[in-house]
Amino acid sequence: MIAEIVCIGTELLLGQIVDTNSTFLAEKLAAAGIDLYHKTIVGDNLKRIEEVLKLALSRADVVIASGGLGPTEDDLTREAILNITASPLEPDIESLEHIRKIFSLRNIPMPKNNEIQAMFPKGSKILPNPQGTAPGFIKEFNKKFIIALPGVPREFKEMVEKEVIPFLCSRLESPAIIKSMVLKTIGVSESKLSEILKDIFFSSSNPTLAYLAREGGIELRITAKGKNVEEASSLISKMEQQVRERIEKLIFGTDDETLEGVIGKMLRGKGLKLAVAESCTGGLIASKITDVPGSSEYFLMGAVTYSNKAKADILHVPGEMIIKHGAVSKEVAETMAKGIREVAGADIGIGVTGISGPSGGTQEKPVGLVYIALSAKDKLYCRDYCFRGTRGRNKSFSAQMALEILRRYLLGLLE
Amino acid sequence: MIAEIVCIGTELLLGQIVDTNSTFLAEKLAAAGIDLYHKTIVGDNLKRIEEVLKLALSRADVVIASGGLGPTEDDLTREAILNITASPLEPDIESLEHIRKIFSLRNIPMPKNNEIQAMFPKGSKILPNPQGTAPGFIKEFNKKFIIALPGVPREFKEMVEKEVIPFLCSRLESPAIIKSMVLKTIGVSESKLSEILKDIFFSSSNPTLAYLAREGGIELRITAKGKNVEEASSLISKMEQQVRERIEKLIFGTDDETLEGVIGKMLRGKGLKLAVAESCTGGLIASKITDVPGSSEYFLMGAVTYSNKAKADILHVPGEMIIKHGAVSKEVAETMAKGIREVAGADIGIGVTGISGPSGGTQEKPVGLVYIALSAKDKLYCRDYCFRGTRGRNKSFSAQMALEILRRYLLGLLE
Repeated sequence: MIAEIVCIGTELLLGQIVDTNSTFLAEKLAAAGIDLYHKTIVGDNLKRIEEVLKLALSRADVVIASGGLGPTEDDLTREAILNITASPLEPDIESLEHIRKIFSLRNIPMPKNNEIQAMFPKGSKILPNPQGTAPGFIKEFNKKFIIALPGVPREFKEMVEKEVIPFLCSRLESPAIIKSMVLKTIGVSESKLSEILKDIFFSSSNPTLAYLAREGGIELRITAKGKNVEEASSLISKMEQQVRERIEKLIFGTDDETLEGVIGKMLRGKGLKLAVAESCTGGLIASKITDVPGSSEYFLMGAVTYSNKAKADILHVPGEMIIKHGAVSKEVAETMAKGIREVAGADIGIGVTGISGPSGGTQEKPVGLVYIALSAKDKLYCRDYCFRGTRGRNKSFSAQMALEILRRYLLGLLE
Repeated sequence: MIAEIVCIGTELLLGQIVDTNSTFLAEKLAAAGIDLYHKTIVGDNLKRIEEVLKLALSRADVVIASGGLGPTEDDLTREAILNITASPLEPDIESLEHIRKIFSLRNIPMPKNNEIQAMFPKGSKILPNPQGTAPGFIKEFNKKFIIALPGVPREFKEMVEKEVIPFLCSRLESPAIIKSMVLKTIGVSESKLSEILKDIFFSSSNPTLAYLAREGGIELRITAKGKNVEEASSLISKMEQQVRERIEKLIFGTDDETLEGVIGKMLRGKGLKLAVAESCTGGLIASKITDVPGSSEYFLMGAVTYSNKAKADILHVPGEMIIKHGAVSKEVAETMAKGIREVAGADIGIGVTGISGPSGGTQEKPVGLVYIALSAKDKLYCRDYCFRGTRGRNKSFSAQMALEILRRYLLGLLE
């Protein structure tokens, strides 16, 4: 099966947006063993969209179009497909209900314009879009398929995973399975990992090992090809074991797991309650922790004590301590951690204070310096890091390392 | 002048790499007033590369190819261009010297393979690549131009700026420039905006108006073409004024401005201090506010009061109120806003309580329901919304609308 991707949108031709949709889809197609030879990007121009779709149909079995399904005048994908397939439009009641519901939940009357989003080329298979007002559709034409999806990346990606790939896989004659798994590490550099794993990396072509640098840490991706899921899985397991033997403690999770999710499971399992006091991370740690559904079971409170008054009033950090050691100091971080634990009545308190930048740094305490403390009944721990990034990256690194310290504590790995 | 971009490389079709080269080039072309109607991505296959380049030459005056100039067997751009233009290869001594020098600086003997990188279709203009071993070239063919550049982003981008854009501009008969500006809206849907602005949208082809749906709200992009910056700017101003006359209050900023940045400026300007009490947003509002450099000047503290105990202890929300009205209620949101204002000694307090989901919803209070309250000396305001998204999206929408309510208060627009 040969697929082709067509991304539609003038903004993609003005350099205003990096197209991540087609990269995402390309990866999923490759994993499903579906060939992709061409991607085309075309603007919001009816004639050109039609020409590009026709050419794609002449080269591929399946053409997947992204974008141009909105309610406005420059959304032309629907019309182009109607013209190519010479189909009439047909309304879909369920889709209309869905769109109406989205608006009514937002307490907004549905504009007349949006009705077009519930109209599809006759005979289409409709692809629900749980997150947005633009359902997609699959239209069969001359034994080939045109698949239209909305361009909003969040919606596009969900629909690719839930609808498009399963549909295409069901049409494959002899599927070869490509499977991969991700091992997520934290607190170790890519070059260090590649040193430790060099021989594994070079010794195998199936499965393969790849490094991906992410905001939260380095990911290791093991990808295997097999006649079936069992064969691919068994290849993956073998390499996973080899890797784990060397770096077990650096791996916090696999695949879609997040650090905050892993920590949440551990806290819940142990019946421990958490509270967090933040200065330089500004609420980001609390926000990450509460991204996890059900976090209210173990997360009691967060305090973002930006002002010294707040540090004193809420966390009982003595004014003299701040004067003597500075607001960014081991002493203050530890007192914040202890303070929030007591105030919240929690088992574990985290305290973070630092200088996110871009200003506020000194020779002695530069931008990027952060103290992360953990307080528990049996433990008082503090460590400093110096990150070298923008304000946003320093916040993010600090939050991630605070979570990692908490993880190590929960595993009994904190010296 | 019409240009077309062709990106060559199988890795771009496997989803392993996000193509940033073409986005960069597209932006530069737009700024130079050169039209771009198509981008194509094709793998390392000689026949397909030739077909794609031929098609591009049939549609455009200039075809810019990225990638496939390396020394290995899967680098086929050079060969494809030779075949299309029926040109012989010619060596370039200077390029060969440059490549040798790069290797000698790395203390490596130059492999024989790399000699091909100093060979060009006869009559080409050679484009030096200071950073790498793959010089580019411009080959004229049937009064059109094929420009070949290396795919390494660092090298590609430097050569686009230093060589390609100046070359193209020198060929433009009456150079035009393209300028655009973005108006950022919040709290209004794309279709509602398009209803309000329909006639402006249709009445003008220069400047043009486009809608872009972003996480934080809908963006309006006005793009103008002019003989010079002044002409383009003046065209933009006229349309900006027309748009502002209709939706002034919905526009919170322009171009790179963020809602939290705009609010920060207003708070600083008015000398007002802010504190935030969050439940369902879990620290996200505080985190957004503190993303702004210098926010410590006006942001005093945030409290993430997930537990009822924290709501009572820190914000003085009476236990009976929670029992009577529920933790997710107007009364609690208002008391949180008032409580955090008083505790922090701030001028403005924000209180947010809601149900982010996925669980915790009831018939009466569904997932996505949120109460956002603002308390100031002269004001107590509360509004409820019901967002329909994932946990993450509900958090994000709630945080964004809390900031918008604050913005409206600061502008005196809150009824």
